[in-house]
Amino acid sequence: MPLWKIYHPVDAFTADDKKGIAQALTGIYGRVMPKFYVGVVFQEVTEDNFYIGGEPHPRFIRIWVDHIARTFQSDEMRVNFFTYVNKLLAPFIADRGFDWELHVDETPFDLWTIQGYFPPREGTEDEKRWMAENKASARTHD
Amino acid sequence: MPLWKIYHPVDAFTADDKKGIAQALTGIYGRVMPKFYVGVVFQEVTEDNFYIGGEPHPRFIRIWVDHIARTFQSDEMRVNFFTYVNKLLAPFIADRGFDWELHVDETPFDLWTIQGYFPPREGTEDEKRWMAENKASARTHD
Amino acid sequence: MPLWKIYHPVDAFTADDKKGIAQALTGIYGRVMPKFYVGVVFQEVTEDNFYIGGEPHPRFIRIWVDHIARTFQSDEMRVNFFTYVNKLLAPFIADRGFDWELHVDETPFDLWTIQGYFPPREGTEDEKRWMAENKASARTHD
Repeated sequence: MPLWKIYHPVDAFTADDKKGIAQALTGIYGRVMPKFYVGVVFQEVTEDNFYIGGEPHPRFIRIWVDHIARTFQSDEMRVNFFTYVNKLLAPFIADRGFDWELHVDETPFDLWTIQGYFPPREGTEDEKRWMAENKASARTHD
Repeated sequence: MPLWKIYHPVDAFTADDKKGIAQALTGIYGRVMPKFYVGVVFQEVTEDNFYIGGEPHPRFIRIWVDHIARTFQSDEMRVNFFTYVNKLLAPFIADRGFDWELHVDETPFDLWTIQGYFPPREGTEDEKRWMAENKASARTHD
Repeated sequence: MPLWKIYHPVDAFTADDKKGIAQALTGIYGRVMPKFYVGVVFQEVTEDNFYIGGEPHPRFIRIWVDHIARTFQSDEMRVNFFTYVNKLLAPFIADRGFDWELHVDETPFDLWTIQGYFPPREGTEDEKRWMAENKASARTHD
């Protein structure tokens, strides 16, 4: 459900760093939804392809995220989420002297399929099965 | 109008496969809108840049789509669309043993230009001309 | 706030062109918001990865934009924006014989952080400080 797209400078992250970020994010989302919902795509951007305020910025991490499975239900949840995510990313980004920006969009739950299935709604038995099995299967509810 | 972005493993598709997918998609949308609205961008993602559930996934196709020209007007149309699209993609994806996920966002019609023109509204004479000529030209209605 | 993503053919732009585009865009947005809000990412797409209407299109520029900090408050502002942007891009795109398409989505202001801070709301003293200093700092309002 969440698709994370991370634009970063060349050589900003090792393969271990990238796996570490993906696993930390999966740790957050995986408490309340199937782990395999969490997709993370890293993309190197060379300095001459990446501009902040009209100037090349060789130390910038730009992240955009699509949330599909859940929307924030309160301001408190929303603020906690961003606080937590920024803390989680700090060892990879802020603590290494990178600047960074992150924005999330919420896209329609009903316009989403995995393995051709419409994913189950939150809190259903189907969703529990998807979490327990960590894989997609036919939805049994409307 | 639809912009399809397809992240795929290295060497998942040949040039013919990619053209085949783009043409099949154009076949769907082109029945009701100008064919040149259909943009498809393929992007190879190496295994160490692509994580599902916190693990590298060497056989995953992740697709995101922006719909601009049309929004789904009923649940039936929506379900039919996804059913049809997943069937169309099967020979390229499911039948080859890839896993895949697809989500669509609907973005504002009025925040869209082609060749500097605001595209015509659905069902207008302008839109019929765009379809017939398969190219953009000045819109004559508000 | 605005994140511009520009897909373009290989060698469509020099580094100077890309900087020129980023600076022109920053010139537009920077009149009303901090300049460092403006992120522009260029991405080369080879001909066999880029399809318009089901065919490879070697001279196509496809741009998608996420607007976060502001939404259009009137039709007039909206039309002026697109007119202005298309004029600004003309020397790099239309005047060189490229075709191009551009669409904008508006994503939630409250789901956005820079350097871990929620950016200040429009018109606040905090925003004026961010503009004057051209950098992020703690927001002092709710």
